[in-house]
Amino acid sequence: MTAVPLRIYDTGKDSGKKSPMSAFLPPDTTLESAIKSKGEQLFALMDQQPPPALFSKKGAYARLMEWSMKDPVFKTQLFRFVDVLPSLNSSAEIVRHLQEYLGDKAVELNPALKAGLAASSFAPALVATPVKAQIVDMASQFVAGETGEDLLKQIKRNTKLGLATTIDLLGETVLNDAEADVFLQRNLEILDSVSKFYAKEPTPSFSDLGPKGPLPRLNLSVKISALTPDVHPADPENSIAALKERFRPILRRAAAVGALINFDMESYKLKDLTLQLFKSIFEEPEFRQQPAIGIAIQAYLRDCESDLRDLVAWARRHNRPLSVRLVKGAYWDYETIIAQQRDWPVPVWQKKPESDANYEKLSLFLLENIDIVTPNFASHNVRSCAHVIAQAERLGIDPRAYEFQALYGMADELKLSLLQMGHRVREYCAIGELLPGMAYLVRRLLENTSNEGFLRIKNMGEATKDQLLGNPVNAIAAAPEPLARKPHAAGAFVNAANTDYTQAANRDKQRAALTACTAQLGKKWPLIINGKKITDRAYIPSVNPAKPSQIIGSWARATVADAESAVAASVAAFPKWRSTPIDDRARILERAADLMESRRLELNSLLILEAGKPWIEADGDISEAIDFCRFYAVEMRKLAKPVVTQSVPGERCVQTWTPRGVGVAIAPWNFPLAILTGLVVAPLVAGNCVIMKPAEQTSVIGAVLMDLLVESGVPAGVLHFVPGFGEDVGAHLVGHPQVDFVAFTGSRAVGCKIWETAGKTQPGQQTLKKVVCEMGGKNALVIDNDADLDEAIPAALYSAFGFSGQKCSALSRLIVLDEVYDHFIERFVSACGSYPIGDPAQPGTILGPVIDADAQKKILGIIEQGKKEAKLAFQGTAPAEGYFVPATVFVNVKPEHSIAREEIFGPVVAVLRAKNLDEAFALVNGTDYALTGGLFSRSPKALERAQNEMLVGNLYLNRACTGAIVERHPFGGFKMSGGGTKAGGKGYLENFLFPRSVAENVMRRGFTPPEEA
Amino acid sequence: MTAVPLRIYDTGKDSGKKSPMSAFLPPDTTLESAIKSKGEQLFALMDQQPPPALFSKKGAYARLMEWSMKDPVFKTQLFRFVDVLPSLNSSAEIVRHLQEYLGDKAVELNPALKAGLAASSFAPALVATPVKAQIVDMASQFVAGETGEDLLKQIKRNTKLGLATTIDLLGETVLNDAEADVFLQRNLEILDSVSKFYAKEPTPSFSDLGPKGPLPRLNLSVKISALTPDVHPADPENSIAALKERFRPILRRAAAVGALINFDMESYKLKDLTLQLFKSIFEEPEFRQQPAIGIAIQAYLRDCESDLRDLVAWARRHNRPLSVRLVKGAYWDYETIIAQQRDWPVPVWQKKPESDANYEKLSLFLLENIDIVTPNFASHNVRSCAHVIAQAERLGIDPRAYEFQALYGMADELKLSLLQMGHRVREYCAIGELLPGMAYLVRRLLENTSNEGFLRIKNMGEATKDQLLGNPVNAIAAAPEPLARKPHAAGAFVNAANTDYTQAANRDKQRAALTACTAQLGKKWPLIINGKKITDRAYIPSVNPAKPSQIIGSWARATVADAESAVAASVAAFPKWRSTPIDDRARILERAADLMESRRLELNSLLILEAGKPWIEADGDISEAIDFCRFYAVEMRKLAKPVVTQSVPGERCVQTWTPRGVGVAIAPWNFPLAILTGLVVAPLVAGNCVIMKPAEQTSVIGAVLMDLLVESGVPAGVLHFVPGFGEDVGAHLVGHPQVDFVAFTGSRAVGCKIWETAGKTQPGQQTLKKVVCEMGGKNALVIDNDADLDEAIPAALYSAFGFSGQKCSALSRLIVLDEVYDHFIERFVSACGSYPIGDPAQPGTILGPVIDADAQKKILGIIEQGKKEAKLAFQGTAPAEGYFVPATVFVNVKPEHSIAREEIFGPVVAVLRAKNLDEAFALVNGTDYALTGGLFSRSPKALERAQNEMLVGNLYLNRACTGAIVERHPFGGFKMSGGGTKAGGKGYLENFLFPRSVAENVMRRGFTPPEEA
Repeated sequence: MTAVPLRIYDTGKDSGKKSPMSAFLPPDTTLESAIKSKGEQLFALMDQQPPPALFSKKGAYARLMEWSMKDPVFKTQLFRFVDVLPSLNSSAEIVRHLQEYLGDKAVELNPALKAGLAASSFAPALVATPVKAQIVDMASQFVAGETGEDLLKQIKRNTKLGLATTIDLLGETVLNDAEADVFLQRNLEILDSVSKFYAKEPTPSFSDLGPKGPLPRLNLSVKISALTPDVHPADPENSIAALKERFRPILRRAAAVGALINFDMESYKLKDLTLQLFKSIFEEPEFRQQPAIGIAIQAYLRDCESDLRDLVAWARRHNRPLSVRLVKGAYWDYETIIAQQRDWPVPVWQKKPESDANYEKLSLFLLENIDIVTPNFASHNVRSCAHVIAQAERLGIDPRAYEFQALYGMADELKLSLLQMGHRVREYCAIGELLPGMAYLVRRLLENTSNEGFLRIKNMGEATKDQLLGNPVNAIAAAPEPLARKPHAAGAFVNAANTDYTQAANRDKQRAALTACTAQLGKKWPLIINGKKITDRAYIPSVNPAKPSQIIGSWARATVADAESAVAASVAAFPKWRSTPIDDRARILERAADLMESRRLELNSLLILEAGKPWIEADGDISEAIDFCRFYAVEMRKLAKPVVTQSVPGERCVQTWTPRGVGVAIAPWNFPLAILTGLVVAPLVAGNCVIMKPAEQTSVIGAVLMDLLVESGVPAGVLHFVPGFGEDVGAHLVGHPQVDFVAFTGSRAVGCKIWETAGKTQPGQQTLKKVVCEMGGKNALVIDNDADLDEAIPAALYSAFGFSGQKCSALSRLIVLDEVYDHFIERFVSACGSYPIGDPAQPGTILGPVIDADAQKKILGIIEQGKKEAKLAFQGTAPAEGYFVPATVFVNVKPEHSIAREEIFGPVVAVLRAKNLDEAFALVNGTDYALTGGLFSRSPKALERAQNEMLVGNLYLNRACTGAIVERHPFGGFKMSGGGTKAGGKGYLENFLFPRSVAENVMRRGFTPPEEA
Repeated sequence: MTAVPLRIYDTGKDSGKKSPMSAFLPPDTTLESAIKSKGEQLFALMDQQPPPALFSKKGAYARLMEWSMKDPVFKTQLFRFVDVLPSLNSSAEIVRHLQEYLGDKAVELNPALKAGLAASSFAPALVATPVKAQIVDMASQFVAGETGEDLLKQIKRNTKLGLATTIDLLGETVLNDAEADVFLQRNLEILDSVSKFYAKEPTPSFSDLGPKGPLPRLNLSVKISALTPDVHPADPENSIAALKERFRPILRRAAAVGALINFDMESYKLKDLTLQLFKSIFEEPEFRQQPAIGIAIQAYLRDCESDLRDLVAWARRHNRPLSVRLVKGAYWDYETIIAQQRDWPVPVWQKKPESDANYEKLSLFLLENIDIVTPNFASHNVRSCAHVIAQAERLGIDPRAYEFQALYGMADELKLSLLQMGHRVREYCAIGELLPGMAYLVRRLLENTSNEGFLRIKNMGEATKDQLLGNPVNAIAAAPEPLARKPHAAGAFVNAANTDYTQAANRDKQRAALTACTAQLGKKWPLIINGKKITDRAYIPSVNPAKPSQIIGSWARATVADAESAVAASVAAFPKWRSTPIDDRARILERAADLMESRRLELNSLLILEAGKPWIEADGDISEAIDFCRFYAVEMRKLAKPVVTQSVPGERCVQTWTPRGVGVAIAPWNFPLAILTGLVVAPLVAGNCVIMKPAEQTSVIGAVLMDLLVESGVPAGVLHFVPGFGEDVGAHLVGHPQVDFVAFTGSRAVGCKIWETAGKTQPGQQTLKKVVCEMGGKNALVIDNDADLDEAIPAALYSAFGFSGQKCSALSRLIVLDEVYDHFIERFVSACGSYPIGDPAQPGTILGPVIDADAQKKILGIIEQGKKEAKLAFQGTAPAEGYFVPATVFVNVKPEHSIAREEIFGPVVAVLRAKNLDEAFALVNGTDYALTGGLFSRSPKALERAQNEMLVGNLYLNRACTGAIVERHPFGGFKMSGGGTKAGGKGYLENFLFPRSVAENVMRRGFTPPEEA
């Protein structure tokens, strides 16, 4: 065993401290020369093969690839066109998309292509047919065939060449059980048909013979995401149970026919789940011995070494030989982007040579464990292969004890050269329909055109053979980090990261926090006015909506007299708070954010229990609250600096801001921490005094926030905790002549009432009252004919049913274009069944209860009304205890139906049909609301039109319409959705400030000072 | 005569086209060597004199000058301290100011000074007394004496040395007749006393003897601004009449005692007036022969050559010999800054060598006309002097036929050297009290420390003698333009320039436009709704408030049904207008601006006649209207570009804007074009439809604006002209459910009513109604103890009485600090008498009528009420015809008096006394309003405090509190002054827009496009 220390999960933060190379194999001169010699031998053999067609510079495909490598914009547009092609049902549509993608001004086309594009409108079929054929032809270069027949032909061909085969059935994420059933069936059929074929063709190929005799010739690779719709990484227990149900038939069949089943690896979020599934299913007595098994390990992951060591230890413990397919990994861009979007540590090495170096390190580890592991080295990189061969020779390992793998349609010259050198080689053959397999094609195209891909660099002659055979460790220092996000500037706002519940440790901590929180429920929470606790009031209990018998706590109900004292104290405290340095005020918010972060799991627990929020929703709520504190602190610091309005000699002209005075924050229960925090801290940091009135249903969370803000340093008098009922305390405060502004989020009825009350200037009132008013929505998602349904359906499900649809941003109307309507409904409705409803205290729950009995009754009533108006297409089941409402889908809804017009605030979706985008956009805009909306489309024109024509406050394109992130997605709508303010946006604080202009004549006696720097 | 072409007034715009050097004397080798030889001779002689004390590096003064030259911040602070010193009445105050100025972090002090400053609080007198003495001592280096006695001593000294003397009595702008009387008396006394002195000392000095015998020994320089408060450059006729009254006694006395009277030149705006006065008074029979006369000409002015030629032609025509004192000019910074502030062509050469070159050109011209002119070459520049000598020799002129002049206390070595070379030299002796003469001192300090001043360059050894003697023409190309304003960026907003009514041509054009406008009065103006003129309505006449019998025109009164059609047409037109490209909308505004500019004098006339606006006010109104159009066009183009909210991989996140819908613009009569234009074009360019309701009193201007906007390209349906009465049409529109916003400027009562009506959401209403509401003010100007009253009083007068106080920004309360109260009141009240009231059609009028009989009655009623509450300190007279109200000042006003609380909107000022700044700021903030406010102070601390503590929308420091300029001074207040919007400010358009966030997932198949540039 090598003595190199185990490198565990690296957050990327300390990479400056340790030398990253210490984690990899230290270069060794003897070994290097062996590798070089093996590599040169391989190169020499490869040069004798016909040149790879993909890089031949002949043929349409090669030319397209060449342009793609030269022009990144063309590459993007071409690949996007390839991606959308399968969903286009007519020549006209193909031509339109072609024009939209490649007619873009930024795309440089060669004259022939340009002319073709220009002509294509006149004779769409003339262009569309060959274009489609060409793309299909492109796909066929990477897909071994559409049918079992095709596959058998390829197996024959491979056998003849001496290659072994592993089979991959094209198909990724399934959305419902029907789709999963189909996929399972296809796997079983392949096992049957191929085993029958092998039975008839008894001669194994060269590569099918291991050191101890024949190996399983039938080798099937399976992706877990294609097996069941019930894969939820944050809920591994239930996911694994569901996956096992699907896997067992395959394993039984494999055992029966003597096949090897290989677990493919997909995205990082599924990795732990896949490993856990692998180990636990093969510990089941039935599968302890057979079938033969294998699993893929991705060397680009920073933490794969520990996974691999763990896996080998498991195999030894259970005496279970296995294959390990060592790959670099195919989702590098995706993993990098997603982690950066979430402010999570990036799980993949950021530099290409780091992955290569890690590959070598793990190659050695596998070879060192060859007694229990059959290593499958899946790489097109000659250096990686040469390294394996050199290490194996050094260790005296029989070359037949391990194998190389390469993809169908790629690196044929490498496969044949390795064979010639006496190595076993297995070809990874993807099988399936060409058009639906475009995702696979795009991945291959990316691989072939990547700036850092070995095949491109070699075949385009971008490096010498010596360079290509160099030790990757030596290339790390100078290597680029192609997708690295720009570092945050000093003092810039940075979003808080959500908890990654796919990590078991985080789930354990959350469970412990829930237990601790539950043990402490039932406290009494007093009013806090002018720094004093007021306890002698009536107390109102707050209950867990999932278990109404559980009392979360009780809160003191404020009286009108309490509201009066809070106003009086605020008026008195205002002048001092106004003149408190902005930096001091900002630091209080930052302390609050730090406190929230340190108590995140505790606060999460309270949100789960009092608001019925699923884990991930509660966690997002906390993150948003933290973001509000930090963002408004940063923004207020910016506003503190006077801005020069016009640069003019002899006069200093600036604009500054001054706070409005005393305000009331009236918050809803659905984001009980985030929105309340935002409504309170924005005016506070701006220098105003605030009277905080949380929603009745979540006043305990309000009380906890109050304590936290006081602990952070908000002075007495500046902030008051006055929970109560909107009708009395709220209304009194809104109309109070000494209240200068109201920050409100809630229902349309209450919002309009507040707007009206605040409009009336009372005797003695000092300012025109400002209302920041955010109300409801009737949010629509439009599904275009060319939408990617694999993405649209999960996004629609989550937008509609996440937190039981109780978000102002939640999806309420699905507007589906005519052509795709039936297909969409079929897939969407059958996917609804898999949506996990239940107690939000369980990590897998996405659909919890609604907030209270009133809400439950109201929503169930709306559903009944809906049944009279439209067609009920789906209704789930719901637990008996608690305020649950099942997920519900209505189809054939007409725009005049009340379920298409009224806000529901529950897990109910109305599906409307639209002839075309004109009609769809008219439907979107045809309600009283304008909050969120979205479009799934792969037409650049349609996406552009949506930006001009979908009149909503927050427009989401090709993604879910919920989950706005502070600063990134300033949130708020207009029409009856709100006054047009943007919470978490750049101008938000200005709502709580008055602008002031200052003009100072700086000329005296004709003399003006030198201009300020 | 030289053949060099006359260079007339240069706007600076075409300086790139012609070579600026063509205007100056072409260098001539023979002459240059003569100049060099004369210059070297002068330098040699100067070197034999004792070194100039000012630059000796010895003594406190010299050290301060040296620091000033090194550290521009120190220089600013020191000179400001010098400037304020005379107004400081105690050691404590001196020390406080010293600390505030020199304790500034940006000032680098030497350790001794720093220690002194630190210690000064403990023993103020110990520091203050010597500091004051030192400054007084500094002043005494430049002022020949405080009394007539001192002057006579200096004359004796000069006579002995061979120098002649010209006397200048310190004192500039006078604010009232009493001050003017004092100054006149001092001049007469000087003439008496000095003539008596000369009578007793019969021997003239060398320099008093001209080529034909003795010259007038008594030579007195007079500044016209010190002679009368009634100097109004835009009204030369009346100003000259007033000046002549003051001048005649001086001239008579001068004639009697045989003195020469020299007219000094001051700022550019007084130049034409001074020349005109000079010529016209000396054409009066009484003064055709005597006294002897002279006038100064400033070579730094681009247009002085034509003035000089004109003057010489005049002298020849009238056979009136005269002296011309050729100076470079002492107000270069001031002229440059003021012109740039006003976007006027800068009247002075921007490069120092241009002024020097022009000086030489004019020197030659003067020498060529020596038969009628006695040139006085006033320069400390050796090259300029040498040039004169060389040219005179070339022309064979007797050196006694011209003279050199130099200032007392400066360039003594030059004076003596010139004498030694046989030239006549006259010393310019300023006489007067040292402390009030600080303005004069500061000018001298600037001169001595200027980067480009000859004395500094020579005496600090910053150039060789050869360089100093070089022809300035050769230095022009490389010379800096020290105060040049940064050029406007392409597409940037540029303010429109007001008409310069000090130019006779502009006055003539305005008079003609008024005549033309008057001839066309009386038209009938229909409604315009949906592009159609509606004529069959009742017509309401609009009259000239200065002559109520004159009907300006009649306007059709809209009905509620008309309002309904306008709304319906707007709703229909909105979708198309919303999607009209922003650039098209912006260009319509720019066309409107161009049209307004091309019709400026015509529109001015209408404003003068219908609104009773004085010329300069009407002209400013047009400029502001033009600015609104251009500024909002530029700002809207900026808003058209989506702004990235957060840069995140895989997602494109931007914010964009969308218009609100249909709005009503309800405008006031006091800025009948500017405010109406602003309220209409801002929402229009943002993409909204607008119903325009001008004020009843100025609906003809509204009709003209409507026509102009239609001509500019606003489509039918998008804008409607619906004049009417607020109570019916206005109220109906504000409450209309299809009206989305109201843009209002007007009274508090109407504003609050609109706020309330708009607050109520009507059935069927689509949006929460937005109100942009600007109301009144009760604006205060605070006069600190150390204020510069010479600046504060004219600013207060103009702020209070300009346009009869009918601006929301007008000064209504003067809050004067205790110590300075009596002195201020005395000067202020006596200055009120000079304020010109009358028909605004006359160019000199500043105080015109109020808008109508109701306003007149209301204001006169308030004045009567004021007389009961406080003490009437001043009440002017008013014409009998028309709605005039005399300027009125109340003193001893208490904050509880209604004249200290209620908005008056007329020429009435309440003066309140405050113990200190705390009390003053409390008074400022103690009303219901928060619009404009100001402070006159020379305490850096007080100015900083005002910025934090004077809670008004527009704060003005050391300047008038009216006259906000678009972009430079975003305008609007809070409390009962408005909703906190800023007309003409960066964020204004956002009031008429809704923000929209767009988040587009740009990752497909794990692939994201290259980041947009």
